[in-house]
Amino acid sequence: MNNLPIGIFDSGIGGLTVTKEIIKLLPNESLIYLGDTARVPYGTRGKTIITNFALELVNFLLGRQVKAIVIACNTISATCLKEIESISPAPVINVINPTVLEAIRTTKSRVIGIIGTRATVDSNIYAQQINQLDKDIKVLQVACPLFVPLAEEGFSDSPAALIVAKKYLKKIKASKVDTLILGCTHYPLLSKTIQQIVGPKVKLIDSAKPTAKKLKQLLQKKKLLSKSQPARKFYVTDAPERVYTVASWFFSDPLPGKLEKVTL
Amino acid sequence: MNNLPIGIFDSGIGGLTVTKEIIKLLPNESLIYLGDTARVPYGTRGKTIITNFALELVNFLLGRQVKAIVIACNTISATCLKEIESISPAPVINVINPTVLEAIRTTKSRVIGIIGTRATVDSNIYAQQINQLDKDIKVLQVACPLFVPLAEEGFSDSPAALIVAKKYLKKIKASKVDTLILGCTHYPLLSKTIQQIVGPKVKLIDSAKPTAKKLKQLLQKKKLLSKSQPARKFYVTDAPERVYTVASWFFSDPLPGKLEKVTL
Repeated sequence: MNNLPIGIFDSGIGGLTVTKEIIKLLPNESLIYLGDTARVPYGTRGKTIITNFALELVNFLLGRQVKAIVIACNTISATCLKEIESISPAPVINVINPTVLEAIRTTKSRVIGIIGTRATVDSNIYAQQINQLDKDIKVLQVACPLFVPLAEEGFSDSPAALIVAKKYLKKIKASKVDTLILGCTHYPLLSKTIQQIVGPKVKLIDSAKPTAKKLKQLLQKKKLLSKSQPARKFYVTDAPERVYTVASWFFSDPLPGKLEKVTL
Repeated sequence: MNNLPIGIFDSGIGGLTVTKEIIKLLPNESLIYLGDTARVPYGTRGKTIITNFALELVNFLLGRQVKAIVIACNTISATCLKEIESISPAPVINVINPTVLEAIRTTKSRVIGIIGTRATVDSNIYAQQINQLDKDIKVLQVACPLFVPLAEEGFSDSPAALIVAKKYLKKIKASKVDTLILGCTHYPLLSKTIQQIVGPKVKLIDSAKPTAKKLKQLLQKKKLLSKSQPARKFYVTDAPERVYTVASWFFSDPLPGKLEKVTL
């Protein structure tokens, strides 16, 4: 038993889609969420900058004695997982491994599609991990950089998002992909639009549920589950008025805790 | 006469639209351009963060002995001009004052529209400056936060941009605006789309030419014009491969100098 909090972090507020599933599956756990809203988005940036920014976030969480760390961001998981693991005494969960397993379990056509930020797609990590487990599965990756701002600006279900998605997803639609990984924690907001383009037969897999499940397994295995009354803290590095609204879209409910601004 | 360089800075590469006009009008001037591509965009962030980031950029330029500073970014000009002026021994030019004068000279209906980032619009600085000079001019402001990512992702002339612009510019189109300030250095890339929505009778005013003109006047007045062979340096704080392509869109030509990555 261990009542210390779990640290969850993201480049911004997309990680709240993962946090929501973690709270659902682990209602007794205390949490510290940290979103780098002052420097979001990460997905259009280069590896060095993403790594520097991410390590600052991890150090913030480690300074608050978290018992485990969840990288609730595909871009960071894809870019600098090793660097994070190398500085963290607490076990680190990333969104990619559990999502890959779920996608492999789901596909029947054995063609998996992946959409994500430019950094995630350029890292090629999803394809590598899928093919390490099953080298005969075909993988088709497409970067969809406009999806993050469209989601954050409330255009997820708009005709503009549909046009952008149609352009981005053309190759996926023309392929034998039957399982599409939403490789960015922002993309669940665009599920309806994405599903409309790829058609009802393609199964969309997002990171939230598989990651929460993996976290629960880890805490069970390491006997780190909490039995206390949970305390949940939500921190962001910049908090203009609008962050509160957008955060509730991603959490798809009012946040179960105050959103506070911190300086790293 | 003074052969030291002019320092030009922006939250990213949008300021290259202004830089291009400066080079056209002042071909003998040496320049140092600095774009904070590691932390772009600024326009969705709060005042404290924008100010901290901007002062770091100014200090970088001051450390390179610039004879004048051009804030080639509406968001920064709108948010922390005073803070920048207070630390700069070199004269500071911003994009707002010269653009306001040009708009006032242009309007006949005496209704001026302003589009910009959320930070620029929330600052209300355009309306304040216009009404300080002429209190009877009506001002209509609209934030268009998706225009920056649409421009940076190459969707400026797409049907998606047209749909987004139609939504953002609805009030402007329904008004008596005859002069529309493009209050963000990214927006010239979207001129065609914006003009298509507001109609051919509305005159679009961007910051590039008025700012370059104002800079020339300042250098003349202070006897700071250069007569040397110009050296032009272009720095960014993050340089993933794609920055080179996008920079050339904003400059609308290949850059007249190497684009180098620096750490602040």
